[in-house]
Amino acid sequence: MDSFKIIAKDKTTKARVGLLTTKSKTIKTPLFLPVATLGVVKTLAYEELKYIGVDAFISNTYHLYFRPGEEILKQFGGLHKFINWDGVIFTDSGGFQVYSLRELIPQGVNEEGVEFKSHIDGTLHFFSPEKVIELQNIIDSDVAVCLDECVEYPVEYEKAKRSVELTTLWAKRCKDKFNQIMNKFDSKNLQLLFGIIQGSVYKDLRKKSLQDIVDIGFDGYALGGISVGEPKELLQEITSFVSQYLPEDKPRYVMGVGEVEDVWFCVEQGFDIMDCVLPTRNGRNGQALTSFGKINIKNSKFANDEEKLDPECDCFVCKDYSRALIHHYFKSGELLALRLLSYHNVYFMMKLFKKIQQSIMEGNFFSSKEKFLKKFYSQQNI
Amino acid sequence: MDSFKIIAKDKTTKARVGLLTTKSKTIKTPLFLPVATLGVVKTLAYEELKYIGVDAFISNTYHLYFRPGEEILKQFGGLHKFINWDGVIFTDSGGFQVYSLRELIPQGVNEEGVEFKSHIDGTLHFFSPEKVIELQNIIDSDVAVCLDECVEYPVEYEKAKRSVELTTLWAKRCKDKFNQIMNKFDSKNLQLLFGIIQGSVYKDLRKKSLQDIVDIGFDGYALGGISVGEPKELLQEITSFVSQYLPEDKPRYVMGVGEVEDVWFCVEQGFDIMDCVLPTRNGRNGQALTSFGKINIKNSKFANDEEKLDPECDCFVCKDYSRALIHHYFKSGELLALRLLSYHNVYFMMKLFKKIQQSIMEGNFFSSKEKFLKKFYSQQNI
Repeated sequence: MDSFKIIAKDKTTKARVGLLTTKSKTIKTPLFLPVATLGVVKTLAYEELKYIGVDAFISNTYHLYFRPGEEILKQFGGLHKFINWDGVIFTDSGGFQVYSLRELIPQGVNEEGVEFKSHIDGTLHFFSPEKVIELQNIIDSDVAVCLDECVEYPVEYEKAKRSVELTTLWAKRCKDKFNQIMNKFDSKNLQLLFGIIQGSVYKDLRKKSLQDIVDIGFDGYALGGISVGEPKELLQEITSFVSQYLPEDKPRYVMGVGEVEDVWFCVEQGFDIMDCVLPTRNGRNGQALTSFGKINIKNSKFANDEEKLDPECDCFVCKDYSRALIHHYFKSGELLALRLLSYHNVYFMMKLFKKIQQSIMEGNFFSSKEKFLKKFYSQQNI
Repeated sequence: MDSFKIIAKDKTTKARVGLLTTKSKTIKTPLFLPVATLGVVKTLAYEELKYIGVDAFISNTYHLYFRPGEEILKQFGGLHKFINWDGVIFTDSGGFQVYSLRELIPQGVNEEGVEFKSHIDGTLHFFSPEKVIELQNIIDSDVAVCLDECVEYPVEYEKAKRSVELTTLWAKRCKDKFNQIMNKFDSKNLQLLFGIIQGSVYKDLRKKSLQDIVDIGFDGYALGGISVGEPKELLQEITSFVSQYLPEDKPRYVMGVGEVEDVWFCVEQGFDIMDCVLPTRNGRNGQALTSFGKINIKNSKFANDEEKLDPECDCFVCKDYSRALIHHYFKSGELLALRLLSYHNVYFMMKLFKKIQQSIMEGNFFSSKEKFLKKFYSQQNI
């Protein structure tokens, strides 16, 4: 059974609308995944995710391994059952933590895997490619990814090259382990496994990695090592370069992308899935996404502003709360403020992706993009 | 028009059910007020208060004076409009802050009022009895209270005596100022004003204060200077002593009471209204109220507990979340945890007060109390 089906293509760009069928449910792409590191989209309840229309989120294998830990996840029968949520769950592999928590990896990585210190208590732990597949099986996510080595930016060519080789080697072992585990499941209940492409900003390495990973063969392909501090032009250059070589018929996932302009760009390049912490992390810092641009609600100019956060938004926050009120909550340290902006921002992203899907279906993706971004940069009502 | 009407009396105790009519709406007593210091019941959205069935809360004049401040409140036309909530709002007068923030009152209090330093920036401010009435009028609360001097426990007799005298003096000035302001309003739109009784744990002072305040005449009477660190026996002794002298036909408010056993006790003594930060403050610290007693969800014994927080509760938290999951959130520092327990605890209190009202209506208050507390102390399902 094909897990991915393209149902519409834009005529002037590479943008497309697809249906991704996972064991939990079938969901539409382009798809934005809010980040639920520990099984929760920070500050939001699952009921709220349903209201907002969140079909899927991505959780973190590394963090779930520590909390609640394998035993609890096994006892409950996986994360879906533990958190009582029937949406689609993606999991990352821990590869990004190899990058972001590298001070916890005193010995570096080797072919076997990566030994690291717990960020909680300093105890030593080991992740092999096989281990992260096992863990993602215990988590029982709908979409798992291979263990990869994500390198920092900027990085020397030789180091990036080695990370590509290691990522390929690990991808093979992940695939083998995955097949071995999936043999026990019936065909309706299979996890999907995505391969991850590395290669930093070096095009030949990106191409090599892509070919290696595609040769192994996965249910989808993820572009890793992006959004790690490189300039926006390089992000755009690499995503558009890679996209031309990715198989048409498989879902394409660009990891860590969530800025509004990058989202439009990556969809235009034919990417189907993205994830990003920004809507919630920035929300907790006071930043709200609005149709007319980003605002920081902590700014004193909002102290007496009777306008809604985004006059064009119909979420409950924009219905019930003025900017002045949310400003008051932030200034007063009220936790509700963090939730309100997280809710609104995730709602904004979901609506944005619905708009994108619709524009592709209706054949006006490019003009919708131009119109959306023009307004987004206008700051006219702010 | 009478703002308070007793609709049922228990035959064996002093417990009663009443209807308190405020300019916002008519609500039933016994009534529990969650605390919304800055206009928000910490972590909870107004929609949630509606789901929970919260008819009223109490906000803090002192804190609202600083944030959002008089100007914003005036601009929006009061707190109801600022927060977009049509429930009943009580405000306290700042008297409790005279007690709890007394390190900010270098000069002490005098007849004129109290000069204090802002807890935010150290600037000097002055609250007179007239000022707190004006402020509560700007806040546009439904029920305002007089400025009082709340003293610490233990306190010397002479100091408590002076605080009673000052509280009486201020109460007169509050009433005068209140009448002067209310003259401008039509009779449907009047705030209610409650007098506050002080006197620490000295019965003669309590009686003196009570007589003074009742002589001035208010829409209701609040017992202040309770729950300031005195032993439970003294709290019970003073509340039951005072209650026998309070006018039957006016609402009786015991401030700062919210422990489950104290609630039953005070209702039994004929009190109609209580407020307390505990359901939300303790919730944020991991303590949940359950039918079988209090639990601290952070306790490691809950790490793998598949049971609901309170198996007998039907709130959304108890429907969707296991103890193990909430434990996981607390351990992981997820803010959602704070909200879940705040929601559940406020729900618990609202249900408790509904049960109390019902038991009085049905004539079985005392047996209901015995049954409830027996289970509450049992810890049988925990």
